[in-house]
Amino acid sequence: MLRKTENPGVQVDVALVHYPVNNRNGETIGSAVTNLDLHDIARAGKTYGVGTYWVITPFKEQQELAGQIVGHWTHGYGAVVNPDRSSALSIISVCASYADALSGATKKFGEKPLVLATCANMQDNTLEYAKIRERIWYGEPVLLLFGTAWGLSSDMLATVDGVLPPLCGSTGFNHLSVRSAASIILDRLLGVHDSVES
Amino acid sequence: MLRKTENPGVQVDVALVHYPVNNRNGETIGSAVTNLDLHDIARAGKTYGVGTYWVITPFKEQQELAGQIVGHWTHGYGAVVNPDRSSALSIISVCASYADALSGATKKFGEKPLVLATCANMQDNTLEYAKIRERIWYGEPVLLLFGTAWGLSSDMLATVDGVLPPLCGSTGFNHLSVRSAASIILDRLLGVHDSVES
Repeated sequence: MLRKTENPGVQVDVALVHYPVNNRNGETIGSAVTNLDLHDIARAGKTYGVGTYWVITPFKEQQELAGQIVGHWTHGYGAVVNPDRSSALSIISVCASYADALSGATKKFGEKPLVLATCANMQDNTLEYAKIRERIWYGEPVLLLFGTAWGLSSDMLATVDGVLPPLCGSTGFNHLSVRSAASIILDRLLGVHDSVES
Repeated sequence: MLRKTENPGVQVDVALVHYPVNNRNGETIGSAVTNLDLHDIARAGKTYGVGTYWVITPFKEQQELAGQIVGHWTHGYGAVVNPDRSSALSIISVCASYADALSGATKKFGEKPLVLATCANMQDNTLEYAKIRERIWYGEPVLLLFGTAWGLSSDMLATVDGVLPPLCGSTGFNHLSVRSAASIILDRLLGVHDSVES
């Protein structure tokens, strides 16, 4: 059997949080599920080896909607016409709360994962991408939290083990969609880059 | 005045091609403009210092639709409620063909840019991300082409100066949305990463 250093056995989950998140005024709200958030983050997750993509919403109707979308692609007509999409969306698990996602991930990994939030602003408890990439490589289970709307609530940010640095170029502007941010962060943490390929 | 090596003066445009692209059977088609392709790639473009985001479609009605979406956010009510979104979408220029986009970019840069395609499969004329990142850093103008639907047609791929390697993790699965792919590639070429920050 290969050791973890030879076969990293990546253990990374992602969670998309629809509650509690901020609205534009910094108030805590629950946001609506968006079809392309499901597709894009599932496709990126599947590409980079994510185990489970937790879609968190406390609203029953929104859970049903998300379940119907996923079902169409994993068991309905969508699965027939596009098996790759079926494969991607099969990593989605809809749940009611962050506590449920954390509990599910902990049970699966056999230990509590390192919970990392993402935020468009620099936070105090920031952990570098390169360091986290290394910890993942050595087999540490990680749960990455992404916030919809104007981002994760400050209460939510206060409970995590660390926060990844905001994504930026050299412009000072960093208003990425959560789909873009999740894709970029997965590539930074799990992507095979030139230096690894050569 | 600063030299380019001190102030790189990034000159990067992106183009989203709706024709000519492949359908699932490898036939050349024209695809439909998608609202979130405009938003997500404009937001990533603005974040990473892209000059112009060319949205290429030969269909008049699709050009009008794209123009109306952009207009809502840059001059309409959208600009009032979300100035950051206005700023992002202001880099969009809708045009009828790749030739028009290339001509516009060439005029703006004062020279023909290096035209790079992106593709989910490895091509012969591949150029590494690290090399292109360096060439951009030293001021070379670059136009990045992204294909919608099942990707750029082979005729299109044959005309470019080079192709970027497919994005991948260690899974063998790489069915990313064009929104995710564009975001990740901009981050690889123009992002400020840990090693640069420290």
